[in-house]
Amino acid sequence: MARVGELLGAIDGVGADRRRGGFSRHVFDDAERQLREWFVEQAQARGLQVETDRNTNIWAWWGEPGDGAVVTGSHLDSVPGGGAFDGPLGVVSALSAVDLLRAKGFRPSRPFAVVVFAEEEGGRFGVPCLGSRLLTGTIDADRARGLRDPDGVEFGEAMRAFGAAPERAGRDDAALRRIGRFVELHVEQGRGLIDLGGPVAVASSILEHGRWRVRFSGQGNHAGATLISDRSDPMIPASRLVLAARDVAQRCDGRATVGRLVPNPGGTNVIPSTVDVWLDVRSSGATRPMVHDLSGMAEEFAAAEGCRAEVSEESYGDTVHFDAALRDELTGLLGDVPVLPTGAGHDAGILAAEVPTAMLFVRNPTGISHAPEEYAEPDDCDAGAHALARVLEHLAGSDA
Amino acid sequence: MARVGELLGAIDGVGADRRRGGFSRHVFDDAERQLREWFVEQAQARGLQVETDRNTNIWAWWGEPGDGAVVTGSHLDSVPGGGAFDGPLGVVSALSAVDLLRAKGFRPSRPFAVVVFAEEEGGRFGVPCLGSRLLTGTIDADRARGLRDPDGVEFGEAMRAFGAAPERAGRDDAALRRIGRFVELHVEQGRGLIDLGGPVAVASSILEHGRWRVRFSGQGNHAGATLISDRSDPMIPASRLVLAARDVAQRCDGRATVGRLVPNPGGTNVIPSTVDVWLDVRSSGATRPMVHDLSGMAEEFAAAEGCRAEVSEESYGDTVHFDAALRDELTGLLGDVPVLPTGAGHDAGILAAEVPTAMLFVRNPTGISHAPEEYAEPDDCDAGAHALARVLEHLAGSDA
Repeated sequence: MARVGELLGAIDGVGADRRRGGFSRHVFDDAERQLREWFVEQAQARGLQVETDRNTNIWAWWGEPGDGAVVTGSHLDSVPGGGAFDGPLGVVSALSAVDLLRAKGFRPSRPFAVVVFAEEEGGRFGVPCLGSRLLTGTIDADRARGLRDPDGVEFGEAMRAFGAAPERAGRDDAALRRIGRFVELHVEQGRGLIDLGGPVAVASSILEHGRWRVRFSGQGNHAGATLISDRSDPMIPASRLVLAARDVAQRCDGRATVGRLVPNPGGTNVIPSTVDVWLDVRSSGATRPMVHDLSGMAEEFAAAEGCRAEVSEESYGDTVHFDAALRDELTGLLGDVPVLPTGAGHDAGILAAEVPTAMLFVRNPTGISHAPEEYAEPDDCDAGAHALARVLEHLAGSDA
Repeated sequence: MARVGELLGAIDGVGADRRRGGFSRHVFDDAERQLREWFVEQAQARGLQVETDRNTNIWAWWGEPGDGAVVTGSHLDSVPGGGAFDGPLGVVSALSAVDLLRAKGFRPSRPFAVVVFAEEEGGRFGVPCLGSRLLTGTIDADRARGLRDPDGVEFGEAMRAFGAAPERAGRDDAALRRIGRFVELHVEQGRGLIDLGGPVAVASSILEHGRWRVRFSGQGNHAGATLISDRSDPMIPASRLVLAARDVAQRCDGRATVGRLVPNPGGTNVIPSTVDVWLDVRSSGATRPMVHDLSGMAEEFAAAEGCRAEVSEESYGDTVHFDAALRDELTGLLGDVPVLPTGAGHDAGILAAEVPTAMLFVRNPTGISHAPEEYAEPDDCDAGAHALARVLEHLAGSDA
């Protein structure tokens, strides 16, 4: 019976990113395919029956597949240069929980599955939770197929190259009917658990959030030969927008981030012709008003430089309140563990609109996430797997 | 006898950049190798004898190689997403001038060569005019070998993969002795010629210029889960520096550009751990003071966000005044054509410290350069080749 740390250790080198640090594991790339293969091997070694759904999510069934199953799992992809825990911890904890339950002779009395969702971070095609959004129809399948990665490859093409049928992507009622309850375990992304004295918490809610892309267009030209007065340099309004996003976030008590900013063509001696700025905005109810303000400013900043601004929404999700009954059931079962909100998005947040859904968080000693420093102590990881096993035993072994 | 437009047309598709627009032709990449092969074929078809020097510059000799040659040429690499004329126009005009001179039965009475310099734009390894800087020892060979491209490949490794010997890179006195005078023809990068009624000008000077990289380091973290008050986000000081560079350029009547800005890791939902900002700064004598001011501001902006700033010089060149006697000889020979300064750097500017050097500019109807819109009319290109032929005939056919 593998401890969580040993399972994580088995995939430790996959997708290591020499340039960025940490790991880059993006849907259908070499690293992510290796992780898929590794998961399939691990599931099969446990006698689980593996299938990949129409939206490239992987399901590993303990016993016969069927409707109303207890489902747990997370994702194996990462942000660019991400940490080792965000995603994989939920998957390996699910496998570890299966081990724990089998060791004590447990057999589920209802359908039971471990799931790996595709492209949770949106690290390649821009839209987060793409696998669960497609499964639930939260994103239009045509739009999803047309999403492009930084090399211009469409998601539909990438699906086909992976061996999947892009024309079959989209809401999958049969797969959804099979999910009775969903529980996702995740490393905490924040410092909520640090001072609370225990390794595990239950989630209350996910902060309202979305992604927007602002394209500033100007006139590409020579950096040496073009007078300042002759320029329409989109880097100027782009930089003003970065600073405005910070100001608006502070004013509205929200969060706004520009972590991705791409000047085109990107030469040192070249005034860019376009600059793409990705805005990640989150707040308690003010997200769209914040973006509305920032869109107006983007146009104003662009006009002042003789440029144009074009704003497009990449994804949006309202505040998610996880199922209150299930949440209370879990906190009781786990000995009144803390209940915490999160600012991070998850596949559980997408599924919550369809089925009773819950999340467990495992303590993160620095709160750092989406960075190589992301961490959880081995003992805390094992405590998380035990807590998950306890929850799954309860949900799959009774009429709970 | 090929017209200039036909020669340019022959390489038109090579290195077309679907993502950025225009052309991306970087030293030793597939496109640049194709252009090298094409140049060698063209030179050999004209009976020229081709050799590649220790610094991967290509020389095509009309007649026996020897010291004190008349040399013309330019470069075949481009900025990322660049135009079709910057570089190639000078190379194909040199070939066209050879055709024109042969058609009239001219034979050079002194050594004569067409040269193609490597990595003029610094589009792959960051330092412009790398081939001519190595040839002249303007860059230390060890430093050059250690320059890295965006994928982390060192110039020395790339030289070896190309089939060259990196340990032989560096100042090449034998090659330098062979250059008696150098004349580079180039598309104008600016609008100086538009209102002057003719297609060709002679260069007076190159503006003082350099490149600096500013690395801002903060704490990578989750864009949703990290409170604004807990952030050390290097994108904030990076954006402030972009705007400060514009202000300083205006105040000092200089030019400052950020065309390359790279957040690492570059995920939408990730606060970057570092942001690299490349500063291109040019002015009449105030470049280093401008950079000194901006470096101080970079540190101040970084400190205000709990980040660090580190400034490194990538390249620097003082104002270049081309050889006055040669310049006057050319303007007289070409019928009192205009004399223009330029804000753009060139291999001719590097060689000017070693040998009498001159440049010819061909009219650019919009002034746009380093962008797909870069252009010169076919008749103007032919006029440029005729002017170059006239100059070369004079320099190589007499004791001029």
